[in-house]
Amino acid sequence: MSIKDPYLLFLGDAHDALAAKVAIGIKQWRPEKCVGQLRLPGCSPEADCGLPDMTIAEARAAGAQTVVVGVANRGGVIAQSWIQVLTEALESGMDVAAGLHNKLADVPALRDTAARLGRKLFDVRHPTQTFHVANGKKRTGKRLLPVGTDCSCGKMYTALALEKELQARGVPADFRATGQTGILIAGSGVSVDAVVADFISGAVEWLAPDNSPDHWDLIEGQGSLYHASYAGVTMGLIHGAQADALVLCHEPTRKHMRGLPEYPIPDLAECLDANLRAAKLTNPDARFVAVSINTSRLSQADADAYLAETEKRLGLPTVDPVRQGVARIVDAIL
Amino acid sequence: MSIKDPYLLFLGDAHDALAAKVAIGIKQWRPEKCVGQLRLPGCSPEADCGLPDMTIAEARAAGAQTVVVGVANRGGVIAQSWIQVLTEALESGMDVAAGLHNKLADVPALRDTAARLGRKLFDVRHPTQTFHVANGKKRTGKRLLPVGTDCSCGKMYTALALEKELQARGVPADFRATGQTGILIAGSGVSVDAVVADFISGAVEWLAPDNSPDHWDLIEGQGSLYHASYAGVTMGLIHGAQADALVLCHEPTRKHMRGLPEYPIPDLAECLDANLRAAKLTNPDARFVAVSINTSRLSQADADAYLAETEKRLGLPTVDPVRQGVARIVDAIL
Repeated sequence: MSIKDPYLLFLGDAHDALAAKVAIGIKQWRPEKCVGQLRLPGCSPEADCGLPDMTIAEARAAGAQTVVVGVANRGGVIAQSWIQVLTEALESGMDVAAGLHNKLADVPALRDTAARLGRKLFDVRHPTQTFHVANGKKRTGKRLLPVGTDCSCGKMYTALALEKELQARGVPADFRATGQTGILIAGSGVSVDAVVADFISGAVEWLAPDNSPDHWDLIEGQGSLYHASYAGVTMGLIHGAQADALVLCHEPTRKHMRGLPEYPIPDLAECLDANLRAAKLTNPDARFVAVSINTSRLSQADADAYLAETEKRLGLPTVDPVRQGVARIVDAIL
Repeated sequence: MSIKDPYLLFLGDAHDALAAKVAIGIKQWRPEKCVGQLRLPGCSPEADCGLPDMTIAEARAAGAQTVVVGVANRGGVIAQSWIQVLTEALESGMDVAAGLHNKLADVPALRDTAARLGRKLFDVRHPTQTFHVANGKKRTGKRLLPVGTDCSCGKMYTALALEKELQARGVPADFRATGQTGILIAGSGVSVDAVVADFISGAVEWLAPDNSPDHWDLIEGQGSLYHASYAGVTMGLIHGAQADALVLCHEPTRKHMRGLPEYPIPDLAECLDANLRAAKLTNPDARFVAVSINTSRLSQADADAYLAETEKRLGLPTVDPVRQGVARIVDAIL
């Protein structure tokens, strides 16, 4: 699966910036892939990627190859108001990609139009390929995996920031996407939480294959070994990744595990230990190289204090990749 | 999903006893569910459940409700020679159940006949229901989970033996199947390694729901936290089980992890520690109550010595459930 670029980012009738965060993420990390955005009547002015607003015809004329649905709405449903525009995109010559729970391919108008015209519908949350069971064999090249105290605490951002910093220093590096937003950003990948359980590690082995000795794969992390709903995914991902380097990601203001009010956030040192034990099964040389903290909910002073205290306590370079960048993490791995 | 009994066990053209082990297991643990066996020309005399040989018509006359395919052949394929017999079974009024990789429902003759007559085809390796994401909420009743140093080292046998021993002592207890053989034995369950990765723990929460305070669920274990291919399944299973009691299962003559020549068998004490840490996330009171050793490849003297040495070293009752039964494990949990 490889999504053709450049993209037209479809924002639909997003009611705020958060609803458009997939599109905003694509624009942030892959601006060179984006020719414009398409917003329907009712779209909030806050839902804006800073790209030219375009019709389907204008985007096609500008070279767009794929419309990417970059908006999340309640329940992952494909709104009736979108179908006309997406059908028009198929008719104009574009493919359509989305990371919604409901599939584009299950909408008769889209499925039939795509089939008739030979266009592709990418439902990136739903892997269509089959994978092998992991074999655990050592692969060439280097790999880094961000792991988290919880879900949604900066693992994708950290991996993408590391890809950018490594490439800026001339080191060959690829972000390897394991979730729907990451796949739409990278243009390929696999939603590991949607593969059949037996093949979690096998899918990651496929995603980050043998490479040249100096090449780094930055594998997008998922979930947490301490999340009672999703830890199986995380465990399989850690084993399949065979990471040489691990980065612990954490959001310090969270009161409990995401979606689980009864479950406290784990202690960071304990979390380092559990993840390292898991990682060493398939790569005995695995080590933690840094800690990545999302301090967006702290003041600058509180963030500085938290980062300094954490760095001292854990003995690892500790940064907020948004406030400070990830240069210190790259220093630690090279 | 609930498979109607009694069963006719279909042995096909099994070339040895091992190929018939599913049928033999069903007969061993649920003799009251089995009315007979059906063997095709070419079936080895060793493939014998000790049940009367019957035709479809004879089995139906004896009350059989379901033909269970109890034979494993290369690649999990449904042999052409089987299809005629299974179609005849559907026509006679029976359902058909199997745990093969390839689905009964994908064989046109079986699918069409079942649809026409309103019979059911159970492909127990392929869950058809949808599950919720695990919520991690504490459930009532008691649960025991066998975990292993490796795959295929006695977890299902241990759980079934414990169900039998508890019931013999008048304790309410249910074996909860998580793999295809277990499901065919129990008549219901879920193949946890075949569910979508996000729902591993949720499927186990569904499988072993709230129960009366003195009731024990004996949940079939899968894989191993130390198996580089399948540990994600094991982790999700441990979290969903919320086990009060854990039993470590081990086969002492194995040289490496099943299917992974590069991977050594883990140290037992280390394995106890890793599994207990994982289990405590969703049940802080989880504890190991015993060790279950498959000594079938050791002499009686070597087995006795190994069991005694392991019991002393780990400080837990250590038994071979085949040689000695599981009374000491039940003593430890009650």
